[in-house]
Amino acid sequence: MNTSEKQALIDHLLQYVTENKREKMHEVLQNRTRYITVVLEDLFQEHNASAALRTCDIFGVQDVHVVQSKYEFKAVDTISMGATKWVDVTAHASITDAITTLKKDGYRIVATTPHRQSYSLPELPLDQKTALLFGSEQTGLSEEALAQADMYVKIPMFGFVESFNVSVSVALCLYDVINRLHKSEYGWQLSQEETQDILLAWIKKVSKTATLVEKNINK
Amino acid sequence: MNTSEKQALIDHLLQYVTENKREKMHEVLQNRTRYITVVLEDLFQEHNASAALRTCDIFGVQDVHVVQSKYEFKAVDTISMGATKWVDVTAHASITDAITTLKKDGYRIVATTPHRQSYSLPELPLDQKTALLFGSEQTGLSEEALAQADMYVKIPMFGFVESFNVSVSVALCLYDVINRLHKSEYGWQLSQEETQDILLAWIKKVSKTATLVEKNINK
Repeated sequence: MNTSEKQALIDHLLQYVTENKREKMHEVLQNRTRYITVVLEDLFQEHNASAALRTCDIFGVQDVHVVQSKYEFKAVDTISMGATKWVDVTAHASITDAITTLKKDGYRIVATTPHRQSYSLPELPLDQKTALLFGSEQTGLSEEALAQADMYVKIPMFGFVESFNVSVSVALCLYDVINRLHKSEYGWQLSQEETQDILLAWIKKVSKTATLVEKNINK
Repeated sequence: MNTSEKQALIDHLLQYVTENKREKMHEVLQNRTRYITVVLEDLFQEHNASAALRTCDIFGVQDVHVVQSKYEFKAVDTISMGATKWVDVTAHASITDAITTLKKDGYRIVATTPHRQSYSLPELPLDQKTALLFGSEQTGLSEEALAQADMYVKIPMFGFVESFNVSVSVALCLYDVINRLHKSEYGWQLSQEETQDILLAWIKKVSKTATLVEKNINK
């Protein structure tokens, strides 16, 4: 299907979606990005995983990568508030798998860690697609993750406690990075093709009729 | 005890504190503030309460107010990472009690809510001592809280999900507000007297010997 055929299909299927949802989907797409992605390494507390996904949706991050070398990734829908429907979650068996894939896709690998002297969050360069890595609740990022990272970033801290809760850490990094991207001239927006593919997937998630209609068209 | 007597007592007791702790306490005090305070209304999930306290410590917020009109406030030490030791938590039986006390102390009452058109977080004025109010997990702030607030603030959002997890919300507000305060000329630092009182309390928390010595002095 070429771009205009795909657009015709989308326009056709959109009639099965309520006006509210249609408007919301278009509005959300304006700020959706694949320029920033989030990698969660072996989170084991469901409320953290869920809160992280929810935050990714809110800040417009379309892709989340989860590494399940020790723990299976589980999100609770009452905490994620349905974010799993709108965000694409990709699972990896090891951190090396995740990093290799992301490097091939042109991402700079940035490890969040309070323990290394490196960029302070507001100074982290954003001149390249960036994958932000977050570690497990008690132990932080693994040695493998730290060894393969291109850069390190830390959030400025002023108290006795020396690390943030992981879901808080995800939120603070995205707040800072997304706000700076929105003001920047980096091409962080989705391409036309990406926009179409994501919209098509969302339409099918909100409308069973649209899904059936598309199946008939493709017969 | 006047200021110089209190300082003499502190200097005396500090010899019972390890050098590491002493340095850390002085460092942390540089960024401690009562200019910003946080009010948590009826949080019922311990992991949120704990993560919020941890974040307050990290951003230098000395006072946290908890309203327990429906639920008892409980923090888990493994999540708060010992923040309860360093942050002063004041409990109130109702939101009106908390707000009345804070208004008397000169605080502007700012309700965080995604549902009212008001200041976007980066534009929230900081020209007055500010109490940031955060609501319960599922229902948000009560009508009483919203009715008594002087201002409303919301965090910019770009996704389908329409509110942040409450502990994430606390962190984002403090990140933005504290960073702006640090760069501002508002008098957000502790007074000499406040600094002494907090330091004295901390010394007694980290050293049993110091506590005993002080008791003997005061006999």
